[in-house]
Amino acid sequence: MANYVSEAVIRRLPGYYRHLRELEAEGVTQISSKDLGERMRQTPSQIRQDINCFGGFGRQGYGYSVSELKQEIGHVLGLDREHTMIIVGAGSIGSAVAHYPTFIREGFRTLALFDTDPARIGTSVNGVRVHSMEELPLFLEEHAVDIAVLAVPGDAAREVFDELARCGVTAVWNFAPVDLHAEERGITVVNVHLADSLQTLSYKIAHR
Amino acid sequence: MANYVSEAVIRRLPGYYRHLRELEAEGVTQISSKDLGERMRQTPSQIRQDINCFGGFGRQGYGYSVSELKQEIGHVLGLDREHTMIIVGAGSIGSAVAHYPTFIREGFRTLALFDTDPARIGTSVNGVRVHSMEELPLFLEEHAVDIAVLAVPGDAAREVFDELARCGVTAVWNFAPVDLHAEERGITVVNVHLADSLQTLSYKIAHR
Repeated sequence: MANYVSEAVIRRLPGYYRHLRELEAEGVTQISSKDLGERMRQTPSQIRQDINCFGGFGRQGYGYSVSELKQEIGHVLGLDREHTMIIVGAGSIGSAVAHYPTFIREGFRTLALFDTDPARIGTSVNGVRVHSMEELPLFLEEHAVDIAVLAVPGDAAREVFDELARCGVTAVWNFAPVDLHAEERGITVVNVHLADSLQTLSYKIAHR
Repeated sequence: MANYVSEAVIRRLPGYYRHLRELEAEGVTQISSKDLGERMRQTPSQIRQDINCFGGFGRQGYGYSVSELKQEIGHVLGLDREHTMIIVGAGSIGSAVAHYPTFIREGFRTLALFDTDPARIGTSVNGVRVHSMEELPLFLEEHAVDIAVLAVPGDAAREVFDELARCGVTAVWNFAPVDLHAEERGITVVNVHLADSLQTLSYKIAHR
């Protein structure tokens, strides 16, 4: 990566990646900053500025090579390696993550699910076994797990998070409706907050 | 609402609402911008500035009343009225939305799900019936639906979106991995993109 990449650019990178994947699937091989900007609802100069940030390689009059740019952004995003995941909570959110085709295609491989509900333990979700929470420490000792997906109810989230931290988990994708932060403990967390997104829609409905 | 509220503030509002709800549940009645800032990982001056934006009412030396501020932000977010929803796509994402307790608590009521899969049609998800897609136009004619949740695979998303638009739907919460925009058709859309969030985590893992 050539230069400092700001938080705002990082937030936009997955959008670039998604659009470039779509373009590739449509058979588009070259794209100008103008056309990419129209597609992504951004100005051409914003596009050029963002891509310059990580040392992109557009050529005056030719635009960008879709496959090269996608590969470069995929590399910046860390998508050129496989990630192993466990999902804690085999309810509807945990199942949805285990089934999501984009994650599987992008190399996020779910090794196991964990749950406290005896009715779920021993079953499979999309071919992946649901284990009891008691099996979690040993599983994490025996497997290299890059990401733990936290898909438990809000009132259980902090306790399960602490358990994951004790077991040496270093990255958590949190769907529980609480803010988790643990940079000081060396744990990288991304909080999803589906309700926030629905409330943004509600705001837009109220103010249109 | 007193003043112009920027996009950045709007994005932060659901976070305020979530933290104020938590504080209320913990029995906290007053909070200073300093304490709220520590909790939300923001500076006290950012907190004061945000709250001033929509005419909040902190008092020097007393801070904010948690319940009044929560009510005010809830009002700005449009959460002081009920919203009716339908969910198109009764797969794992659609089911997760139908089960999500926060939505139900905040007055987002799912009236029906729709799917093309004969194995799903006629079943119930969290007590709500799954209808066939053929029933969609009549259902929308006969029911006041505020929000359609789009939880179909990416390759079906645009077609279903057009069908929803034809049937007069004016707000869509989109989980399909494509960007939908239809402001020019008078439709308010919020795109979720779960994969973007996971890729942000992957970025942070690659660069820590």
